[in-house]
Amino acid sequence: ARTGVPEVVFAQGKTPERTLALLAELRRLDPDGPALATRCPDEVLDRAPDAFDDVTVDRVGRTVTVGALPPPVGDVVVLTAGTTDVPVAREATATLAALGVGARLVADVGVAGLHRLLSRIEDIGRADVVIAVAGMDGALPGVVAGLVPAPVIGVPTSMGYGVAAGGRAALATMLAACSPGVVVVNIDNGFGAAAHVVKIVHRG
Amino acid sequence: ARTGVPEVVFAQGKTPERTLALLAELRRLDPDGPALATRCPDEVLDRAPDAFDDVTVDRVGRTVTVGALPPPVGDVVVLTAGTTDVPVAREATATLAALGVGARLVADVGVAGLHRLLSRIEDIGRADVVIAVAGMDGALPGVVAGLVPAPVIGVPTSMGYGVAAGGRAALATMLAACSPGVVVVNIDNGFGAAAHVVKIVHRG
Amino acid sequence: ARTGVPEVVFAQGKTPERTLALLAELRRLDPDGPALATRCPDEVLDRAPDAFDDVTVDRVGRTVTVGALPPPVGDVVVLTAGTTDVPVAREATATLAALGVGARLVADVGVAGLHRLLSRIEDIGRADVVIAVAGMDGALPGVVAGLVPAPVIGVPTSMGYGVAAGGRAALATMLAACSPGVVVVNIDNGFGAAAHVVKIVHRG
Amino acid sequence: ARTGVPEVVFAQGKTPERTLALLAELRRLDPDGPALATRCPDEVLDRAPDAFDDVTVDRVGRTVTVGALPPPVGDVVVLTAGTTDVPVAREATATLAALGVGARLVADVGVAGLHRLLSRIEDIGRADVVIAVAGMDGALPGVVAGLVPAPVIGVPTSMGYGVAAGGRAALATMLAACSPGVVVVNIDNGFGAAAHVVKIVHRG
Amino acid sequence: ARTGVPEVVFAQGKTPERTLALLAELRRLDPDGPALATRCPDEVLDRAPDAFDDVTVDRVGRTVTVGALPPPVGDVVVLTAGTTDVPVAREATATLAALGVGARLVADVGVAGLHRLLSRIEDIGRADVVIAVAGMDGALPGVVAGLVPAPVIGVPTSMGYGVAAGGRAALATMLAACSPGVVVVNIDNGFGAAAHVVKIVHRG
Amino acid sequence: ARTGVPEVVFAQGKTPERTLALLAELRRLDPDGPALATRCPDEVLDRAPDAFDDVTVDRVGRTVTVGALPPPVGDVVVLTAGTTDVPVAREATATLAALGVGARLVADVGVAGLHRLLSRIEDIGRADVVIAVAGMDGALPGVVAGLVPAPVIGVPTSMGYGVAAGGRAALATMLAACSPGVVVVNIDNGFGAAAHVVKIVHRG
Amino acid sequence: ARTGVPEVVFAQGKTPERTLALLAELRRLDPDGPALATRCPDEVLDRAPDAFDDVTVDRVGRTVTVGALPPPVGDVVVLTAGTTDVPVAREATATLAALGVGARLVADVGVAGLHRLLSRIEDIGRADVVIAVAGMDGALPGVVAGLVPAPVIGVPTSMGYGVAAGGRAALATMLAACSPGVVVVNIDNGFGAAAHVVKIVHRG
Amino acid sequence: ARTGVPEVVFAQGKTPERTLALLAELRRLDPDGPALATRCPDEVLDRAPDAFDDVTVDRVGRTVTVGALPPPVGDVVVLTAGTTDVPVAREATATLAALGVGARLVADVGVAGLHRLLSRIEDIGRADVVIAVAGMDGALPGVVAGLVPAPVIGVPTSMGYGVAAGGRAALATMLAACSPGVVVVNIDNGFGAAAHVVKIVHRG
Ligand SMILES: Nc1ncnc2c1ncn2[C@@H]1O[C@H](COP(=O)(O)O)[C@@H](O)[C@H]1O
Ligand SMILES: Nc1ncnc2c1ncn2[C@@H]1O[C@H](COP(=O)(O)O)[C@@H](O)[C@H]1O
Ligand SMILES: Nc1ncnc2c1ncn2[C@@H]1O[C@H](COP(=O)(O)O)[C@@H](O)[C@H]1O
Ligand SMILES: Nc1ncnc2c1ncn2[C@@H]1O[C@H](COP(=O)(O)O)[C@@H](O)[C@H]1O
Ligand SMILES: [Mg+2]
Ligand SMILES: [Mg+2]
Ligand SMILES: [Mg+2]
Ligand SMILES: [Mg+2]
Ligand SMILES: [Mg+2]
Ligand SMILES: [Mg+2]
Ligand SMILES: [Mg+2]
Ligand SMILES: [Mg+2]
Repeated sequence: ARTGVPEVVFAQGKTPERTLALLAELRRLDPDGPALATRCPDEVLDRAPDAFDDVTVDRVGRTVTVGALPPPVGDVVVLTAGTTDVPVAREATATLAALGVGARLVADVGVAGLHRLLSRIEDIGRADVVIAVAGMDGALPGVVAGLVPAPVIGVPTSMGYGVAAGGRAALATMLAACSPGVVVVNIDNGFGAAAHVVKIVHRG
Repeated sequence: ARTGVPEVVFAQGKTPERTLALLAELRRLDPDGPALATRCPDEVLDRAPDAFDDVTVDRVGRTVTVGALPPPVGDVVVLTAGTTDVPVAREATATLAALGVGARLVADVGVAGLHRLLSRIEDIGRADVVIAVAGMDGALPGVVAGLVPAPVIGVPTSMGYGVAAGGRAALATMLAACSPGVVVVNIDNGFGAAAHVVKIVHRG
Repeated sequence: ARTGVPEVVFAQGKTPERTLALLAELRRLDPDGPALATRCPDEVLDRAPDAFDDVTVDRVGRTVTVGALPPPVGDVVVLTAGTTDVPVAREATATLAALGVGARLVADVGVAGLHRLLSRIEDIGRADVVIAVAGMDGALPGVVAGLVPAPVIGVPTSMGYGVAAGGRAALATMLAACSPGVVVVNIDNGFGAAAHVVKIVHRG
Repeated sequence: ARTGVPEVVFAQGKTPERTLALLAELRRLDPDGPALATRCPDEVLDRAPDAFDDVTVDRVGRTVTVGALPPPVGDVVVLTAGTTDVPVAREATATLAALGVGARLVADVGVAGLHRLLSRIEDIGRADVVIAVAGMDGALPGVVAGLVPAPVIGVPTSMGYGVAAGGRAALATMLAACSPGVVVVNIDNGFGAAAHVVKIVHRG
Repeated sequence: ARTGVPEVVFAQGKTPERTLALLAELRRLDPDGPALATRCPDEVLDRAPDAFDDVTVDRVGRTVTVGALPPPVGDVVVLTAGTTDVPVAREATATLAALGVGARLVADVGVAGLHRLLSRIEDIGRADVVIAVAGMDGALPGVVAGLVPAPVIGVPTSMGYGVAAGGRAALATMLAACSPGVVVVNIDNGFGAAAHVVKIVHRG
Repeated sequence: ARTGVPEVVFAQGKTPERTLALLAELRRLDPDGPALATRCPDEVLDRAPDAFDDVTVDRVGRTVTVGALPPPVGDVVVLTAGTTDVPVAREATATLAALGVGARLVADVGVAGLHRLLSRIEDIGRADVVIAVAGMDGALPGVVAGLVPAPVIGVPTSMGYGVAAGGRAALATMLAACSPGVVVVNIDNGFGAAAHVVKIVHRG
Repeated sequence: ARTGVPEVVFAQGKTPERTLALLAELRRLDPDGPALATRCPDEVLDRAPDAFDDVTVDRVGRTVTVGALPPPVGDVVVLTAGTTDVPVAREATATLAALGVGARLVADVGVAGLHRLLSRIEDIGRADVVIAVAGMDGALPGVVAGLVPAPVIGVPTSMGYGVAAGGRAALATMLAACSPGVVVVNIDNGFGAAAHVVKIVHRG
Repeated sequence: ARTGVPEVVFAQGKTPERTLALLAELRRLDPDGPALATRCPDEVLDRAPDAFDDVTVDRVGRTVTVGALPPPVGDVVVLTAGTTDVPVAREATATLAALGVGARLVADVGVAGLHRLLSRIEDIGRADVVIAVAGMDGALPGVVAGLVPAPVIGVPTSMGYGVAAGGRAALATMLAACSPGVVVVNIDNGFGAAAHVVKIVHRG
């Protein structure tokens, strides 16, 4: 694609028929890479294996990838603060895999249990880029960016209750992070974080 | 006082005359403890030394204390994330001093430079109570509460710009902190945090 | 636990299997105290009695406690403004019980019927700490804090409609309370208020 | 006037010349009652005594009344929570006086010092209508409405800081008041509360 | 009741059993007037006729009144802007009826069809008090208050979509109404408007 | 211009030198029509008459027009609810004049004094397009759109206090207007409303 | 109709019976034009063909039109940024058709794929008026208005997630559009945009 | 520095003395690279040339750089939508220069004049990374990201009025941008965008 990121099907609010048809069409237009659909409702996840030959379904991240995955380039670490943030992180890792970037998922290393994060920080710091996914207080990306040289992308999630419900508190925390260089995407937008990383890695 | 916290003059929006007169009156009504005024405009800070005999003026915290300080009880640590948060922290320490609680101020230990916080965490953890003052992302109280057994009170500050301006982002972060037991007061309310601590320490 | 508050399972957004497994694991890791899960969906509340030997289920507060309760220390009063605030108050009392703090629940003493509160205020005032749970206008903690020497923790609830729906009006009222020393936790966070109290009582 | 409330000059944002001219014109059009201007800047307050013969200037409430006051009907009590709320209350009492309603101002009876309110509640309860003016937590109208049979009108004020700054917290508290029958006007709108009362008293 | 408005059951969020039991208890405590429940779910509306002898059920306004209605005093007009605002208006008329105040409901006279309002304005203007219920732009109370001498109480409703959804746009419009003397209650709070009117009429 | 509206200088936030230079440059690039600057600070208004030969300065609307005005086409009525809304209306009329559209300004016909509006409605209704400028409750455009066949463009203004301060209440009222066909521009954007009208009139 | 736009049934929140009866009544009152209902629930869409003789049902736009369509006047282009915005666009085209204005729908030309828009811009630019429907970032109307001489009306949609959910982000983008002359209607209000256009076209 | 971005002085809210002293100290601690201060008040900009030998002052971007600039690596394009966005862009370019990254500033290419952007898009597209700075509608980053393969970082600015004032509208637009891979920093945070780019370029 002209922009380095091919068209991807946003399945939310579309009929399953339409999503499956769009995947088939993308596949036909661009046979060199896989076709990807995100935010798939259950019915798409259920029907995709019968609809296509070479298909990868991630029920947690709600993605469908049709076609062989390209060989992965680079080393991206995707962190989550809690276990409830994992679906958003999985949307990111599925997108990275479909677009040919290598990724490792490290879950449940939020700042309430800082030792779990610190004990792995050397290894995390070796990544090319870090994606940090967090809901509630959204403090994780700022803390990580103060500890490692890799660029850090924060993904706020809508998990949480009270003032945290919907993700705006986590979003504001990340935008106001005191560690320099944290950038942010929309709430729950694992796909967008991954797309930015793909542009970095493939250009780098 | 019936509630354990004596009346205190809130000087903002009052004329200097009225604030100084109220201090004199509180002094007369309750000669056993000092009289305190918070959020004092420059003119009150300037005129207080001439108006009273035994007076302590904190130009940074904008407080005036009239009368001898009671002997301090307990050990409270007041942390700040940045140097711009210090005035709010000084409102807290002046209130603690006036109401007979011992306090130490540890400034500029925000999470962007986590090593500065970690290198002192043992000492901080020995406090009876911790007050953590932070603007911008407001991540400090949650990180500290995950590291020490002392109860932690978060004070969001209005410092910052963009989404952080006015302090609502820091407030939401603290309310949504994942570490259990963080409680919060109004933005810039160093006095309120200190009043809560006074009730804990004098009752404990 | 290093912080004085052991890990607790936040069951909302987890599968019942996962919550029950985490309770079993916490029990195994720390056999000295009970294991607690909060915000449990119906299925967890239903299945817990068969899954464990020594289990306490609070259907109103939506908590499950596994293992013998420790002997209670201290005297905490948990007030509610209305009867719809009781579930949040029960999350607090179940947490206090599981973590070894003694608590009394006094319901429906909101400021619309001030005499009900005033007739019990002496007794309430003898508590070590007061937790005041209120939705709609959220005025209760401020009124109580002006009447008793105990530290007061306000818990806003999401009950209410119109401007009060979701709890932000009650939250703002409590943060702006004119009585000195009121501290606040997130909307509906009975657990968090209890965790703060546990740290106070066990340290005191 | 057709609506029972004559036209009144809203002086904010007008030049002093224009405000004084409008007062003269209202006086000429309706010689039976006084002409009133609210939210007057200093220059209007300064020049009014020279501009008119029979003029009452309230520097605190920022009102100018031109012409003899009508004989007062009825008994309205105007309460304030703090001393900073007095200017808004004075806008209300000046309006009531200009429109022929009798009013008493009772200041500084907010809920942080509940005994001051309770010791006068019998007397307050004898009023035809109560206007309760409060900033910060805005709890006063709800508490009063639970204690007296008179209709209660709440006026939130913009005084306060943090979440209370601008008056939206007090406004929401009053709208969500649990005591039945509290009605509310815009923030700082002492005039509007008085206008409603005038309609009640003159119609009753 | 001490405040002129007896206790009323707020049935939302209560079990039908509890609501019906509370109605029976209110009936027993105060046999002189009827007992009222508002915001009743379907099951309460269905079961009330079998549970009580002398019962009035308003399925549109979702109210249940047990006991003979008192003879009505006064003349209140309840206006609605659209037909979707009628349920809130019916909560008001049922409350007025239960508390002994006479009311007339005039529906669908919003400002988009101004002639429908103007053709009846003389008759409306003869009321003791006007309650104006409106969603979407909420312009009705301000327009009416500029046309009649009666005091006007605005009730914003949550009907509407886009910026009007939830009622905050209508609430702000009413608070900012340019006609003097409009007072406002919480969104959808037909009961609260009626309670204020009851206090006015019975005191007048 | 390709879009039917020539480039216009937005002078706010620019130095007077830069604004005057940009006006000269626009004049040179397009000698057929006048050059316009809006939101001019005092210094631009003061210096413009010396800087250019054929210049029109509107001190109320804060506009500077350089060059002869084109002959006006069409008939646009610009209404204001109050006198404080006149500066925004004057920005609209100056823009219309500069771009060759005929306009009449009718001030102070807000809905609080509905008779003033109704007595002129026939005449207003003859316009090609109506621009209705209003702050506070912003009810004017909706009422007018229900009375005349001309398309109505609402311009909310930032005038007002309390919930109306800044213009968001008026904006929401206009967007939620029940009369069909009301369209809206940004707060205080008299220029934008005029630009839309220019496109309509010149295309019609 | 006096205003150029006949009454239209807003079916949301009405029973199907009532909507069908209102359509029949509008048909009877004004036999010259068709009767229109918008925001129809499924049951109305299902029953309309049996209830009326000459009926057009748009299941995507959720409209029902009863009676022969008038001959179309003018040329309006309705653009959508994405396919999820089509239902709102179809509400607009159905309204235009019912009120006698000719319209073309051009879907999925959002700014993320700018070439699709640019390749058709000449043709779009020939329209009398352009309606641009967009959710998420809402950038489409501003970009189009910078490219064509036709007046542009922006319709924000509630599609989207995170900060875009509910349509307020798209609404603000359109109000702040830098291209002169963009006007805006309420979120999802395809009907309102069409009503404005009808007034322009029939008056032009 | 451990994180790849050295400490930088945030001069806003600091005394000029303190900022100049901190610059001297940073210079001493790390003589290999220049020391940078951002958001400098006039007095710092005025005094810096006398205080240091080898100093670069950017009055527009409000930055002070002390010490020789490192040789620039990479090619970053910094775009602005309007000329009022230039100060924020200059904070970014000064930061890039101080930290050894090559940058080109391309101003005033917002989407209202799309041709100015399109005529340079090939050249822009050759950059390693693009920073797009925009206020008002904030549409620029999304449009650019749909046209070039480089990663795009959006910086919303606080310029604008009405709904755009303060920058939240531009922020939301950028977060909701439909083009994949746009990431965002806090409002007016040119420094933060540059810091992210430095990490990318130096790691790539
Ligand atoms: N900095 C502060 N923030 C909040 N409340 C305060 C502060 N200082 C004093 N107060 C409270 O304000 C009360 C006095 O208010 P006033 O009667 O207006 O002087 C004191 O008794 C305290 O409860
Ligand atoms: N009701 C609650 N509200 C807020 N936090 C809670 C609650 N219950 C448990 N937690 C916290 O959530 C942590 C567990 O989160 P998780 O790892 O997602 O199960 C516990 O250690 C507590 O700190
Ligand atoms: N989709 C719509 N959005 C906004 N207003 C509408 C819509 N459809 C119809 N209306 C308006 O609502 C009026 C009828 O409302 P009602 O009396 O509640 O049926 C019509 O005359 C239109 O002005
Ligand atoms: N313009 C800026 N915006 C946000 N953060 C900044 C800015 N300039 C410097 N900083 C950060 O603020 C830190 C210094 O803060 P301080 O200790 O208050 O001087 C630096 O190390 C940067 O991480
Ligand atoms: Mg966890
Ligand atoms: Mg620092
Ligand atoms: Mg109760
Ligand atoms: Mg006081
Ligand atoms: Mg109707
Ligand atoms: Mg006027
Ligand atoms: Mg598309
Ligand atoms: Mg420009």
